[in-house]
Amino acid sequence: MRANYQKEGLLLVVSGPSGVGKGTVCAALRKRMPELTYSVSATTRAPREGEVDGVNYFFKTVPEFQNMIEQDELIEWAQYVGNYYGTPRRVVEETLASGRDILLEIEVQGALQVKEKFPQGIFIFLVPPTFEDLRKRIEGRGSETETSLNSRLHAASDELKQIEHYDYVVINDKVEKACERIQSIILAEHCRKDRLVISE
Amino acid sequence: MRANYQKEGLLLVVSGPSGVGKGTVCAALRKRMPELTYSVSATTRAPREGEVDGVNYFFKTVPEFQNMIEQDELIEWAQYVGNYYGTPRRVVEETLASGRDILLEIEVQGALQVKEKFPQGIFIFLVPPTFEDLRKRIEGRGSETETSLNSRLHAASDELKQIEHYDYVVINDKVEKACERIQSIILAEHCRKDRLVISE
Repeated sequence: MRANYQKEGLLLVVSGPSGVGKGTVCAALRKRMPELTYSVSATTRAPREGEVDGVNYFFKTVPEFQNMIEQDELIEWAQYVGNYYGTPRRVVEETLASGRDILLEIEVQGALQVKEKFPQGIFIFLVPPTFEDLRKRIEGRGSETETSLNSRLHAASDELKQIEHYDYVVINDKVEKACERIQSIILAEHCRKDRLVISE
Repeated sequence: MRANYQKEGLLLVVSGPSGVGKGTVCAALRKRMPELTYSVSATTRAPREGEVDGVNYFFKTVPEFQNMIEQDELIEWAQYVGNYYGTPRRVVEETLASGRDILLEIEVQGALQVKEKFPQGIFIFLVPPTFEDLRKRIEGRGSETETSLNSRLHAASDELKQIEHYDYVVINDKVEKACERIQSIILAEHCRKDRLVISE
């Protein structure tokens, strides 16, 4: 008898309302868990300061993005406050097939689409400690006009209601604590009884 | 809106076949997680070298143990290779009621009894990397006669089949790795969506 954990990659989805800090948490997680594969999303929104094409996002024009949709190159996509966001299919499928874990940091609408296609995924919802924290974070970002600020706040409030579709909730009180929680969720999920393989 | 994790204590059960190293792993876990409450079992077996009454076990005579059974002072008990083992009720109930987690390190027969009474518990099964490792460990313990060695090996083989009743499986390849897995399981379980409380 020999006991081993299954070599099947986990599809991990980290989502949550606009402004909760998904990008910051996932960037910190990357440093703690370099062995994870991180899916890079495509978007038509403008790069923020310091964001690098192909690392933070694949920055696309609207016609380029629409072409990806038509060619079925995205496993999910959504329009969000006037911009497109989506997850390229190829890296996700290749990573899982090779037995490695992949993490998707995506918007709430997109996460629900992924759940339909990959119900075996692990869905993690990032929340702020309070709604006030969320408001401050969105305002502080400074990249919003007043209209887009209001529309983001309204969207964030709606998105919080989608929590019921998730497996885990991670409170983003401190980035390092949020990372530690996500790291524990990944390790624990690998220990689920159904993933153990006993061979002779 | 304010998000908090529920202040309900988790009942954590660490079990596994005879000789897998439950005691060693839980002793190491105690050092890493002093904030956890550890249930101390009662037993009629003789103390092994270094074991302290009230810390590793409450060492009881057979009549004392039978009296605890009659007084319904145990949430589970079993006879195992000629000795009684059981979990005193009071500490478990008081700890959970106060909102703290409690960890029970118990034999497989007893764990199944606890599962009937506490289906909301988290059941963790410790396994050796191979059955050969288990055999070596039981033999190396040196506290067994040949008859009790055979009967332990036979029991261990039966116990391994109970894995299906558990939520998680932790391979005890290295004590520190096994501890890290258990620690992650505990942290991840606290992040389950159902444990989040959103208040106004």
